[in-house]
Amino acid sequence: MNVTELPFKLMLEPTAFKSFQATKRIVRRLSDMQAYFRDKDAVDEILANSDRMLYEFLEIEGEENQSLSFGMTTIFPGTIGNEFHMTKGHFHTLEEDGPEIYVTLQGQGKLILLSRAGQEQVLDMEVGSISYILAGWAHRTVNVGQEDLVFLSIWPGQVGHDYASIAERGGFPKLIVPGENGPVAIENSTFSRCEEEV
Amino acid sequence: MNVTELPFKLMLEPTAFKSFQATKRIVRRLSDMQAYFRDKDAVDEILANSDRMLYEFLEIEGEENQSLSFGMTTIFPGTIGNEFHMTKGHFHTLEEDGPEIYVTLQGQGKLILLSRAGQEQVLDMEVGSISYILAGWAHRTVNVGQEDLVFLSIWPGQVGHDYASIAERGGFPKLIVPGENGPVAIENSTFSRCEEEV
Repeated sequence: MNVTELPFKLMLEPTAFKSFQATKRIVRRLSDMQAYFRDKDAVDEILANSDRMLYEFLEIEGEENQSLSFGMTTIFPGTIGNEFHMTKGHFHTLEEDGPEIYVTLQGQGKLILLSRAGQEQVLDMEVGSISYILAGWAHRTVNVGQEDLVFLSIWPGQVGHDYASIAERGGFPKLIVPGENGPVAIENSTFSRCEEEV
Repeated sequence: MNVTELPFKLMLEPTAFKSFQATKRIVRRLSDMQAYFRDKDAVDEILANSDRMLYEFLEIEGEENQSLSFGMTTIFPGTIGNEFHMTKGHFHTLEEDGPEIYVTLQGQGKLILLSRAGQEQVLDMEVGSISYILAGWAHRTVNVGQEDLVFLSIWPGQVGHDYASIAERGGFPKLIVPGENGPVAIENSTFSRCEEEV
């Protein structure tokens, strides 16, 4: 079935989603994200043994226009040095901007947010929570639990993705690391606070 | 909090949604929908006693552009004659068209769909199911269970709503009525099959 031809029903849980006909699958391994983690010795040590899979993204794309696309992300548990596994993170492009909604299906996460004007926010993700990301806010997701973090995402189909701005600025303002009483957000010393020229 | 100023988190369950700051609340009573049910004697008899509430819709509106709006609908259980409680149903307008996604949180329902080209479809709604409604398809929701049917809906904020075309055509192609082995879809004799001129 081509999902764009007829309305359809799909169960909101990881197994059903994986068996559905995804139109795109992206796998991010540590080798794709070496520059994103600050502990380079830890990166090298892990890569010397195996190229660990950090997360997988399955997308069901809608029509290009007048659509809501949606996808399911699974971030596998673990740390690189003392940073939890996370997504690359991106802005939506200024020309093709739009919001995004996450629905968390499994696990525990933190959603790190950064607006173009430099505002910062960190939101908790837990089973059954909706995260509403406004247009203009870059977003990165971090698995802070012991199991897979799985979430559904919904966004307007025409949205464009800008990963470069995050890489150029040295990531997000905050890093999420293990603390004595659970995960904590600390300052990211490599983040450049200069505002993006728009 | 103005929900459009900062990204936010919300639990995906009816109580949390109701306590959140909805920007719009719509209540539909039987008196608002007399013409939508075919058993006029049943309508009159019920209205002689009380103006029954059929459903409630809470909306959290996003920005007008570049947004995903979302809302939660609660259809209370019951029948009018032998038709289950249902929503009015609408097309999105041709000028401001777009898809819609439902996530069912409680109860059991049927989603009746009708495309502008005259295609028909009926999808089941159950707890944890996602219903993907393509742009161009009119949609009506029916509570076929014994408890509230509660679902989240997400749609592009610029979408316009057209209720008149449904009323003018005598409803949807199918009616949902109780059967020996559960709810069944039957032909709606008042529905006009002539295609809409667009």
